[in-house]
This record gives sequence, C-alpha cells and structure tokens, in this order.
Amino acid sequence: MSLDGAYDDDNIFAKIIRGDIPAAKVFEDAHVLAFMDVFPQSRGHVLVISKTAKARNLLDVTPESLSRLMADVQKVAKAMRAALKPDGIVLTQFNGAAAGQTVFHLHFHLIPRYASAPLKAHGEGGMADPKALAALAQQIAAEL
Amino acid sequence: MSLDGAYDDDNIFAKIIRGDIPAAKVFEDAHVLAFMDVFPQSRGHVLVISKTAKARNLLDVTPESLSRLMADVQKVAKAMRAALKPDGIVLTQFNGAAAGQTVFHLHFHLIPRYASAPLKAHGEGGMADPKALAALAQQIAAEL
Repeated sequence: MSLDGAYDDDNIFAKIIRGDIPAAKVFEDAHVLAFMDVFPQSRGHVLVISKTAKARNLLDVTPESLSRLMADVQKVAKAMRAALKPDGIVLTQFNGAAAGQTVFHLHFHLIPRYASAPLKAHGEGGMADPKALAALAQQIAAEL
Repeated sequence: MSLDGAYDDDNIFAKIIRGDIPAAKVFEDAHVLAFMDVFPQSRGHVLVISKTAKARNLLDVTPESLSRLMADVQKVAKAMRAALKPDGIVLTQFNGAAAGQTVFHLHFHLIPRYASAPLKAHGEGGMADPKALAALAQQIAAEL
C-alpha cells in the first residue's frame, strides 16, 4: 500500500470503532478512541485513533482532527506514565507499508519503555491475553 | 535522564534555535523550526521542534504548543513526500533516555522510508555532509 489511495471502511480499526470487533478501551469520546494494541511491543502499548477522520495516515488527515488527536495522545501518555511508571515512552506513527504501517487508518502508538526490558518487534510477543489487556486498560484509564 | 526534570537551556537544540550552532533549515517561523538531522537514518531525515516551548518531551509541552508543532510536522511531511517521493514516512518521538531520547528538547523525527534501503540505526551512518543536508533542506523547503 502506497502513501496515496482511498480509505478502506473495512480496515480493522474501522471495525473496532463500529463495535464489530472488541478492543480493550482506555479512553473514548465522540472523536477519539484509545485502546490496547493486541500485539504489544511492551507492557501497556496503546493505540490512539480518530473515530471521525477517515484518514489513512498523517498526510491525509485534517489539521483539526490531528490537533484533537494529539491532545488525547498527550493525555493518554500522561496517564500511562502515572499508571505504569515506565522509564520512557516511545511515540511512533507509520505512513505507508514501506514505513511499517499494517492498518491503513491513521494511528499513533504509545509504547512504554522499561529499562529492564528490550522492546519487542511488532508481533514478536504474539497476541496478548484479552484479560491482561483489559486490566492494563483499566489501570491507565484510572489515571485519566 | 528520566521523564521528569528541568529543561536545560544549553541543550543542542536550544543552541540551534539561538543560532549558536548551525543547522540545515527546512522551515522556520516564530514558533517552529524544522531542520535536517545531522545523523540521518535515511536520506531526508528531518527534525521538527518548537522554538518557544521549553519542553523536554511530550509530557511537559502545552497542548497549544503541541497542536502548533503537529500542524507543521504535517506540512513538512507533505513537502517531504513531494520533494523526495519516499515509499513511506516514519514519525517518531522519544520520551526519556530509556526510550532512546538523546536531546532533551521535545522533537519529532520525520524519516523517509525507501523500499530499496533499510533504515539505519541512529548514528550508524555517521554525520552527514553539511552541503548534502543543505541541498536536501532546500529540496523539501521548495515544496512547502
């Protein structure tokens, strides 16, 4: 998938937004949804997406949606720090398959870093236990 | 360096903002500066920083400064795509030394990805030739 192209309404995040498939939600309002990555690269890996912007990536989102999204990315990062006390936090966002993007709905990764644990490659740790993800989501949500 | 702590006015990006050390600038206004990373992870690697926010990371920047910064991150990403025609673009932002942060002034990396070239580790390629960086900066700036 190149950087250009049409938004696909059947991408997996669109299905999560519609409630067609479940997610361990950290935060949700009319515009933004934050939920646990099911292939966490570290304990507490969260994804933040717009619910209203049909944007594939950073290049085709409106500045207004991007601004709103980033405000919530920051809120979730602060809650993540308070809840999980990581040593660091990585923010990443991939544009295009060549950049590592696998779901073509704009999303920001917030990945806690712990000095004691190396970062896993995406998918390396396998799919996380849904109950463990729900517990982490609650822990972070409690600090929002 | 932990996630907390005071902003250091003598960090290298503060010096670039003050003009104490040179940089290959892509974009500059009263609030935001974009310039070429001297240790590029790929051809055209740009850093985007706030000139006015004394923020170490995503956690201590005001939402207003963050919003302004992201609007310009997006503008530069679009210009990067137009100028360099990469196959993808990676956006990263590191918080805390444990996350890979080395300069403690909030900054966003925009890293073009080319299907033909693997991403270099930070510093792996060595310091880039200043003339080559200036030429790339001009190429991207021409698309702004």
